[in-house]
Amino acid sequence: MHTTVGIIGAGPAGLLLARLLHVAGIDSVVLESRDRAYVEQRQRAGILEQTTVDALRAAGAGERMDREGLVHHGIELRFDGRAYRLDLPGLTGGRSVMVYAQTEVVKDLVALQLREGGPLLFEAEVTGVEGADTGRPVIRYSHGGREQVLTCDYVAGCDGFHGVAKRAVPEAARRTHERAYPYSWLGVLADAPPAGDELVYAHSDRGFALASMRSPVVSRLYLQVPNGTALADWPDGRIWDELDARLAADGSRPLHRGPITARSVLPMRSHVTEPMRWGRVFLAGDAAHIVPPTGAKGLNLAAADVLVLAHALAARYATGSTELLDAYSDTCLKRVWRAEHFSWFMTTTLHTDPGHGPFEHRLQLSQLDRIATSSHAAAELAHNYVGVPVGLPVNSPSC
Amino acid sequence: MHTTVGIIGAGPAGLLLARLLHVAGIDSVVLESRDRAYVEQRQRAGILEQTTVDALRAAGAGERMDREGLVHHGIELRFDGRAYRLDLPGLTGGRSVMVYAQTEVVKDLVALQLREGGPLLFEAEVTGVEGADTGRPVIRYSHGGREQVLTCDYVAGCDGFHGVAKRAVPEAARRTHERAYPYSWLGVLADAPPAGDELVYAHSDRGFALASMRSPVVSRLYLQVPNGTALADWPDGRIWDELDARLAADGSRPLHRGPITARSVLPMRSHVTEPMRWGRVFLAGDAAHIVPPTGAKGLNLAAADVLVLAHALAARYATGSTELLDAYSDTCLKRVWRAEHFSWFMTTTLHTDPGHGPFEHRLQLSQLDRIATSSHAAAELAHNYVGVPVGLPVNSPSC
Repeated sequence: MHTTVGIIGAGPAGLLLARLLHVAGIDSVVLESRDRAYVEQRQRAGILEQTTVDALRAAGAGERMDREGLVHHGIELRFDGRAYRLDLPGLTGGRSVMVYAQTEVVKDLVALQLREGGPLLFEAEVTGVEGADTGRPVIRYSHGGREQVLTCDYVAGCDGFHGVAKRAVPEAARRTHERAYPYSWLGVLADAPPAGDELVYAHSDRGFALASMRSPVVSRLYLQVPNGTALADWPDGRIWDELDARLAADGSRPLHRGPITARSVLPMRSHVTEPMRWGRVFLAGDAAHIVPPTGAKGLNLAAADVLVLAHALAARYATGSTELLDAYSDTCLKRVWRAEHFSWFMTTTLHTDPGHGPFEHRLQLSQLDRIATSSHAAAELAHNYVGVPVGLPVNSPSC
Repeated sequence: MHTTVGIIGAGPAGLLLARLLHVAGIDSVVLESRDRAYVEQRQRAGILEQTTVDALRAAGAGERMDREGLVHHGIELRFDGRAYRLDLPGLTGGRSVMVYAQTEVVKDLVALQLREGGPLLFEAEVTGVEGADTGRPVIRYSHGGREQVLTCDYVAGCDGFHGVAKRAVPEAARRTHERAYPYSWLGVLADAPPAGDELVYAHSDRGFALASMRSPVVSRLYLQVPNGTALADWPDGRIWDELDARLAADGSRPLHRGPITARSVLPMRSHVTEPMRWGRVFLAGDAAHIVPPTGAKGLNLAAADVLVLAHALAARYATGSTELLDAYSDTCLKRVWRAEHFSWFMTTTLHTDPGHGPFEHRLQLSQLDRIATSSHAAAELAHNYVGVPVGLPVNSPSC
């Protein structure tokens, strides 16, 4: 089989890329190692930047999102017993974010691609990418019990942190940057109305907590826990009590409690692989970078990567020029490092580090107080939160 | 001997307080353990915030500063081979800083106090402060070979990090917050014109460097060095070569070299002692807090402390109310923690931490690039650099 763009991975990055290419009239084939049910049920992020929302609309996948998604004009910070609301549009010249779960984004994109796109093969396990340096790269994969070959003009590696695509970058040329954090998140889904209309990020002596939501009747809640925490140590009552204790502030009320329908422990990690392109292989999303979830940047970085890549491929087929493709890695990495820094900032400002003492605790409180009292500090956080510009060239062909 | 305010220490905090009280018609006695020559020759900071400049003028000590000090409207950041200038007035609504060495400030204040102030005793070593909880605290000191006693209405502990005044706060009530940094500064004074008209803060793979100045013909230069560095390892040629290597950026020229007239290795430390007041004893300046010098905040914090204290004492004697004295510690600590955070931010953003790897190095570059490209990030740095408001009550009597 041959296609113009071979896409490895049917997460949001790979699926959105397939749709953006489809709109631009460029063929693609998507290969996904898992089955459809697995892909559609993974619990992941839920905050979409304006750029991501616009990209989903441009990809034709905005209909249900615009109907069911919740536009949020603010977030709340709680610290030192106080609550402070960041007015996102007021601080950023009108920009906001949308709450719409990644699982829903994936369902919408899968349905659309199966209905009117190129091939999307589930349970197609990629075993290798060859010929990145040649004019005709090859993806080897097994599907339906047989070894298969997909030849492509270009390969998009959207296969996540553990994916094989990044191996197309020779080890001698690959640079990795990593940081592990000395804490994890215990995340739960609960059939309970959220505490309020907006997300609450809480700094507390007891550790970080985040009250988020999936809908007006489903809460998504997180607690900082030590690495290696066992779910068995956290019966429902302890989870709710701890959330209430950490989220307490003047005038706040206890959470609405309800049945917990899913729970998991999530590690916190920062990772960047550079460069994000080797020859005709392009890495996008988690295949190239991981952020801790505190800044809600993972999904949005993936969407921005494929937006840049789709524009560059569209320009390549419209004009023959590879200029934008050649710039892909540098264009993306500038924004990636901004997001890595912001995610690190949010994480280290809000979490309790077991290796730190009262001095660092007071620095955190001084930083949070500064955000609550300085328009510059608040605006800097808000601009990063709603997302910095993707950096698309002004005159590039639109997808 | 009795006085209204017994001041321990003739550094800038103690001397400025004595002058502000003198202007307000309040008696004081200043006790300093060192001799005059030592006090006047200590090399320390050299950047005065507008609030500090105003306080020195209000204290009658602004004449030579206004004649010889250099008003700076910007600072330069160098990183990744680039140079970026922060326009301080443009970013802060017109505020700037003044370059005028702490040694000169001290000389001006000493001369003024000896000419027209209350007693200023050198080589008067304080051995203890008693009765902080009573209406009549006592300072015991030795002077001229004899043990002496100074009774006071109030005591101001301006005797630095190693001073005795802080012991007036009972150990059970005293909270200390500390952080040591894994690097020091090698600081030199050189008879050479500065590289440019403004300070240059340089981030480099080789470590931090700072090009400052004392006058148009005297440079003050700093290099990050490992803790425990011996001066013998740094002959003049190595110092100049390393400064040039770290300060290099597109379009930059090598430093003017000249005789090095003083050199020392300075440790980097953050420290806060709370509360800053116990009964009738008030701590000010280094006696209560130390910042690493990267943000140029040490002298300015000391000046702000005594400005708050002088206002509170003036209100006490004008109206009988101790409200402002009672609020002293809280009023000061809010600004102290802001400065502690800013100094930590400047230090950790610009220095190379031997315990960190390439990930943290890239976070630093992303932060510096953000300052160079986001008006909010630049304004947040500039506002902290020129100094946040001291927080004096609007209707307090002026000194």
